[in-house]
Amino acid sequence: MTEKGRAPAARAVLQQCLRASLQVKPAEEHSEAQSVQIDRGMVIYVCFFKGATDVILPKMVSTLLNLRLCESDSGKMVSVLELPGSLLIVPQATLGGKAKGRAMQYHDNISKEDGLRLYAAFVSLCEKELTAAASAEVTVKHGTYGNRQVLKLDTNGPYTHLMDF
Amino acid sequence: MTEKGRAPAARAVLQQCLRASLQVKPAEEHSEAQSVQIDRGMVIYVCFFKGATDVILPKMVSTLLNLRLCESDSGKMVSVLELPGSLLIVPQATLGGKAKGRAMQYHDNISKEDGLRLYAAFVSLCEKELTAAASAEVTVKHGTYGNRQVLKLDTNGPYTHLMDF
Repeated sequence: MTEKGRAPAARAVLQQCLRASLQVKPAEEHSEAQSVQIDRGMVIYVCFFKGATDVILPKMVSTLLNLRLCESDSGKMVSVLELPGSLLIVPQATLGGKAKGRAMQYHDNISKEDGLRLYAAFVSLCEKELTAAASAEVTVKHGTYGNRQVLKLDTNGPYTHLMDF
Repeated sequence: MTEKGRAPAARAVLQQCLRASLQVKPAEEHSEAQSVQIDRGMVIYVCFFKGATDVILPKMVSTLLNLRLCESDSGKMVSVLELPGSLLIVPQATLGGKAKGRAMQYHDNISKEDGLRLYAAFVSLCEKELTAAASAEVTVKHGTYGNRQVLKLDTNGPYTHLMDF
């Protein structure tokens, strides 16, 4: 969580899902579109702001994977690691938008180069934590940074949460 | 947008969709589950905080419906009124969550009674604005306050935005 008054370094929106798929490569003349898919688990939409560094990543990943944001079969709130569930990580620069008149501006967002690096490190850390803690049946899938995120989502109640870091 | 330092009275998360459906009545012994559905448009997840009153609603609805949060067929960012698109409004109390340890707490959320009243007024105002501005082909659908929000979402890129009011 951000300290009072400090601008956030990263923002995540979390939704639990029964199934989610994300296009990672659009269709081209001689190739079909490619997608990744998870079954039950959590979709993490993530956006990094100017000034974000690798320092925030361990706490960010630990928080997102250990907070009780998912509902178990018995109706109890548990973490995605406890569920255990899979992760679909979606880069989502629009989360950094601020309204100016009728337009959205994204001036606080990190540069594309730094964002790509942090996003890759974030995904890698999620993979490490999930592999260490959960069963072999769960997995981490993720979108391609900078691409259109064509998403399909099927939930039993998304329980949408917002977390600033 | 909230003024600097003031706690928000309401929070909305916006996602554009190609199609979205939401269960409004769960299946029972002698009846099937009932759902509402929209085609192209915007999903509005909404949460009201303690202290929220009707005073915020006109600006909130006007902002959400007129901000350029949707992509037109030509790739230009336009408002949901300009698209024109339909609205699916989802009550989402989890958006008011704050982490304490590994648990989420919702102490800033409005009471259920006041929340229900504001939610109904918010939906009604959205219907009024959409009807006044857009064609007959678009519509406002919404979830039932206090129920599980079983949602299915199909996007061409959700462009997830966050707005505090």
